[in-house]
Amino acid sequence: MKSDIGMLKAIVGESDVSDELADLYVYSSDASVHQALPSVVVRPKTIEEVQQVMRYANGNRVPVIARGAGSGMSGHAVPIDGGIVLDMKRMNRILEIKPEDILCKVEVGVVNDELNRVLKPYGFFFPPTPSSGNICTIGGMIGTNASGNRAVKYGATRDSVLGLKVVLANGDLVKLGSNTRTDASGYQLARLMVGSEGTLGIVVEATLLLSPLPKYRAMGIANFDKLEDAGRAISDIISTGITPSMLELMDSVAITAVNRALNLGLPDVAAIVIFECDGMVKESVGHDIANIRKTCERHNGSGITVSDDPKEMARIYEGRKKLFPSLSRYGEGLVSTPLADDMAVPMSKIADCVQEIHKVAKRNNVIMSAYGHCGSGLIHTKIMMDPTKESQWEDAKRAVTEIYEYVYKIGGTTSGEHGIALSKAPSWKVEKKDSLEMMRAIKRALDPHNILNPHKLMDAPDDWTKATALRYNVRRG
Amino acid sequence: MKSDIGMLKAIVGESDVSDELADLYVYSSDASVHQALPSVVVRPKTIEEVQQVMRYANGNRVPVIARGAGSGMSGHAVPIDGGIVLDMKRMNRILEIKPEDILCKVEVGVVNDELNRVLKPYGFFFPPTPSSGNICTIGGMIGTNASGNRAVKYGATRDSVLGLKVVLANGDLVKLGSNTRTDASGYQLARLMVGSEGTLGIVVEATLLLSPLPKYRAMGIANFDKLEDAGRAISDIISTGITPSMLELMDSVAITAVNRALNLGLPDVAAIVIFECDGMVKESVGHDIANIRKTCERHNGSGITVSDDPKEMARIYEGRKKLFPSLSRYGEGLVSTPLADDMAVPMSKIADCVQEIHKVAKRNNVIMSAYGHCGSGLIHTKIMMDPTKESQWEDAKRAVTEIYEYVYKIGGTTSGEHGIALSKAPSWKVEKKDSLEMMRAIKRALDPHNILNPHKLMDAPDDWTKATALRYNVRRG
Repeated sequence: MKSDIGMLKAIVGESDVSDELADLYVYSSDASVHQALPSVVVRPKTIEEVQQVMRYANGNRVPVIARGAGSGMSGHAVPIDGGIVLDMKRMNRILEIKPEDILCKVEVGVVNDELNRVLKPYGFFFPPTPSSGNICTIGGMIGTNASGNRAVKYGATRDSVLGLKVVLANGDLVKLGSNTRTDASGYQLARLMVGSEGTLGIVVEATLLLSPLPKYRAMGIANFDKLEDAGRAISDIISTGITPSMLELMDSVAITAVNRALNLGLPDVAAIVIFECDGMVKESVGHDIANIRKTCERHNGSGITVSDDPKEMARIYEGRKKLFPSLSRYGEGLVSTPLADDMAVPMSKIADCVQEIHKVAKRNNVIMSAYGHCGSGLIHTKIMMDPTKESQWEDAKRAVTEIYEYVYKIGGTTSGEHGIALSKAPSWKVEKKDSLEMMRAIKRALDPHNILNPHKLMDAPDDWTKATALRYNVRRG
Repeated sequence: MKSDIGMLKAIVGESDVSDELADLYVYSSDASVHQALPSVVVRPKTIEEVQQVMRYANGNRVPVIARGAGSGMSGHAVPIDGGIVLDMKRMNRILEIKPEDILCKVEVGVVNDELNRVLKPYGFFFPPTPSSGNICTIGGMIGTNASGNRAVKYGATRDSVLGLKVVLANGDLVKLGSNTRTDASGYQLARLMVGSEGTLGIVVEATLLLSPLPKYRAMGIANFDKLEDAGRAISDIISTGITPSMLELMDSVAITAVNRALNLGLPDVAAIVIFECDGMVKESVGHDIANIRKTCERHNGSGITVSDDPKEMARIYEGRKKLFPSLSRYGEGLVSTPLADDMAVPMSKIADCVQEIHKVAKRNNVIMSAYGHCGSGLIHTKIMMDPTKESQWEDAKRAVTEIYEYVYKIGGTTSGEHGIALSKAPSWKVEKKDSLEMMRAIKRALDPHNILNPHKLMDAPDDWTKATALRYNVRRG
């Protein structure tokens, strides 16, 4: 790799290339369980630099792994085979904001919340809201088709991507998509790039469809003694024509986690459902919230509170908001790992799936919570385990496999918003078994030397616990 | 081809294969200007039959052109190189309707309006609304990413396709996408298939996201003496957070056409804008309609009428509804041809583009109207010309080229909802010049023998007037 370093420094400049071990270590992991050292870290500032890096890498068969904030949960940014980690965070300019065309153009290193901060005075926002919004980049969101708690109303990243500029494996720059919401101009390649996890090209710029900021918002919370009732309420709310801007579930494990960590005093019930509506007309928002309340009541929801007061809404959402960090403090010696973490299932199967998750966890000696954006069919789970014990990784592996077998049986899919990469790939390959060859054919066509984020998705190892080192001190035996 | 016929009859049965000239003639054209005879017409009834036909065709290098209703405007279903036209209309079963999961599963030969008739009692609809809805099939809509006048609120076909079953060129059956709205499970291949115009696979089944039927609807109409005012009103309506369910424009040529054909007495103005709002709450719909009215007034709209009375709404929409057939009766000896017919432009550029269309028409000796779903940036045009004169085809060709040059200059794209195929391909290849090789690589990867709807899109001839015979009696010279 030594000869590479000089070439790369000639392209992006001395200070934006590093193969110092301290730097490589920083770039060796993301928010997943995986860890592997890159050979070198490169921080391009322009499209031309990205093109030159790709030409060099393609000619020399060096893997290139594009990286945003490194907040991915499945190992997207982990350089399983070494090579160049391309840190895209320096390409962080907001290039154009065109309220009259309801779009903006950005470089992919722009951070999601920062974009929304800049858009606010224009009366618009970019709707996807991953909970890592304060750090995650638009590029990373495109790579995984990120969504978040408002996807139930506003869709996922792919629904707001109009066009992309992409540097291909050979360094060619292509413009995909358009500036218009309506687009039937042949192959929808911008949409193919969304969710391709850096394996088909390096996305460098994006044209994003904006949404007008809603003027009014109201929120509510309901407790359910039976998970089935919560599940039926969720399915009913969605299918009767109300489109909440948020519809979240917390199961009993999630409730316990928040109470233990924060002493919030949430009720000891099977499930809590939190709902929000937004819009331009106060009466309409009020009408929708009242309707959801009635639906919750009809399905034996209790302790229902609704409010449009900002403070009260913050209080309602507090437990859900702090759930993710709370899970890490669930029990002494337990760590919350992002495994099997974001399946999506048909709306009517949410309660069944949550119950099955609890059963699978129990018989595999791990603790699992289920929560998330149920209004769009998404269930988040985390596995709380002792990561220092090798046997717990075997437990986790069995649990993941069993949960996904169930998810596929009920018509669900592996990932709703975090993507596949390494830790979800073995199960996902079972789900997608008949189209893996098709994906490989497309990958070969666009990246014949397999340099773009290799060994992910359809080419990932079959045992995720052995795909890379695990970023925990696992005591063998 | 004779030996093929026997093989094909063995696959789908004697009565579902024909090479009679009368049949071939019926399948030689669609709603475009193009015409070319297929070698044989095959009407499969099952996925297995499609797979066997593809295996046979792939082995023998016979082109296969999937066909829905043949209502495509650009030549998608015209078998430019002969081969098998695969009439998908017999695969017309609605397989499942799952209101609890807000989805349905259909074979692709199902007609759009028929699907909506069946969905209505469940309280749902499939939102794309092409004006050919009474004949067009779900498969054809997927092939072109069809949308229609409600795309401004409900999106295009791709936004409502969750999953697909597709038979690949080699006969393999693949399941793409999922049953869930939220999907980050790797490559978004179902979305790649949408809009690929039968060149990457034969779509046989689709899982469709449904929308709840709105309970209330209101409509309005406004006249504008200046096109710019209408354009500003449209851009303003969209960017201030109101989402109309329809926002349509008719220019002066369109108004004249309707008045001549139907004697409707529409006012002699530069533009008419028709708007509709729908929703679950009467007050909210009323609020939105009132707001749009105010926006039209602010931009010098006159004669504004709004109503939620079904009869009055039908009257408001009558001119727009009958515009397409009216254009064919615009003038003695003139025929309305679907050329340059559905560009999409950034919202703020609609008025400029309509004015340019008029200028281009004038200097090229043709008459062009501009109308359409401006709320989503779509402009429909038709060229009214004497199709028996060879010189008029040269006029039309110049006009099409010049209009698209302008469309690209203002950031627009070739097709908003009808697709590319043959007659839009030469200009579209200019728009997409830097990604044509990428498309060809994907096409080769999935269809190495180039049997799926060959010579369309990136492989279409460079002169659309000579791509096939024209389906008019053109007197040479």
